[in-house]
Amino acid sequence: MQLTTTRLQAQIQFIVEIDKLKHVLRQTILMDQSRRENDAEHSWHLAMMAIVLSEYADPAVNLLRVLKMVLIHDLVEIDAGDTFCYDAIALQDQEIREQKAADRLFGMLPENLGAELRSLWEEFEARESLDAQFAAALDRLQPLLHNYNTQGGTWKKAGVTVEKVRKRMEPVAIGSPVLGEFVENLIQDAVRQGFINPAAD
Amino acid sequence: MQLTTTRLQAQIQFIVEIDKLKHVLRQTILMDQSRRENDAEHSWHLAMMAIVLSEYADPAVNLLRVLKMVLIHDLVEIDAGDTFCYDAIALQDQEIREQKAADRLFGMLPENLGAELRSLWEEFEARESLDAQFAAALDRLQPLLHNYNTQGGTWKKAGVTVEKVRKRMEPVAIGSPVLGEFVENLIQDAVRQGFINPAAD
Repeated sequence: MQLTTTRLQAQIQFIVEIDKLKHVLRQTILMDQSRRENDAEHSWHLAMMAIVLSEYADPAVNLLRVLKMVLIHDLVEIDAGDTFCYDAIALQDQEIREQKAADRLFGMLPENLGAELRSLWEEFEARESLDAQFAAALDRLQPLLHNYNTQGGTWKKAGVTVEKVRKRMEPVAIGSPVLGEFVENLIQDAVRQGFINPAAD
Repeated sequence: MQLTTTRLQAQIQFIVEIDKLKHVLRQTILMDQSRRENDAEHSWHLAMMAIVLSEYADPAVNLLRVLKMVLIHDLVEIDAGDTFCYDAIALQDQEIREQKAADRLFGMLPENLGAELRSLWEEFEARESLDAQFAAALDRLQPLLHNYNTQGGTWKKAGVTVEKVRKRMEPVAIGSPVLGEFVENLIQDAVRQGFINPAAD
């Protein structure tokens, strides 16, 4: 009983700690353009996308594992912060900062549980398994939908060119060819509408 | 191909529409007391709790179904708004407002998918299946953790008595006896610390 209680206490402390994810702001602007999105909202949105779009994943993809991955994939940003994908300098030490954060956060949990979630997070980061590739596709598609629906959003703010957007979106077609085709059509339309800079670098 | 495209378009439109859940404010105050929580953040937090606390559910509980339930359980509030659980007047027409919202929102999806999510939402609302009972336990436990960690939060604001809190928390023990015991201990401690009004109604 004492052991169970200690175990449960650790789990509750973790649940209280991760409330902080609601304060980690992303560059993404919400669809109504009122404010920036935070990581908790983003993670929920990815989970909903996994449910709604799972038919476009490889049939071998395990939805439960994908859901776990997208729900936890940004937890490390509680300590490491959100790194803007077009910020080359911040990207340099991102991995070190995030590994340290993973040590602390997953280390708060009972060992078997912490190890399971840490391992899922590493799998997501590596983007090698089918589950991780589908999760990564969603993680790229979601901000694209926001940028498209906010007349350019962070693309315009950062002056990003269409080549950079295409490069950034490559994981979508890897995780799901159907979604990859959808994204390419959306990018072409975004260029036509002036939401993305069509110039070469 | 045209059919597939139309289907995917409907799914994408639904994904864009539900961005609005990020604007539905709850009464709950975040752990750092900086602001109120929104439904998207709340739903993400419940999903994380389902993953971290699933060992305290009945062994027959299906985690994938619980995750789907908690991720979608508040979608109807996009149209119906959040109804404060201690507001007796608003509670009266809550069901009618939410059924109408479910018609519209789940109706945006391709039929098989909309029907699946609608049915999961109805199951969650009925709180009769083991999966729904565990999901409901998490939905009650989460704001309790917030109120406890913010020195009373909405309990104090609404002047709620300990009997009302205990009544509100009944689904926790039904969904998980271990979590029910944890909650009862937390309530007793909250009364001791002056976070909950111990007076009889």
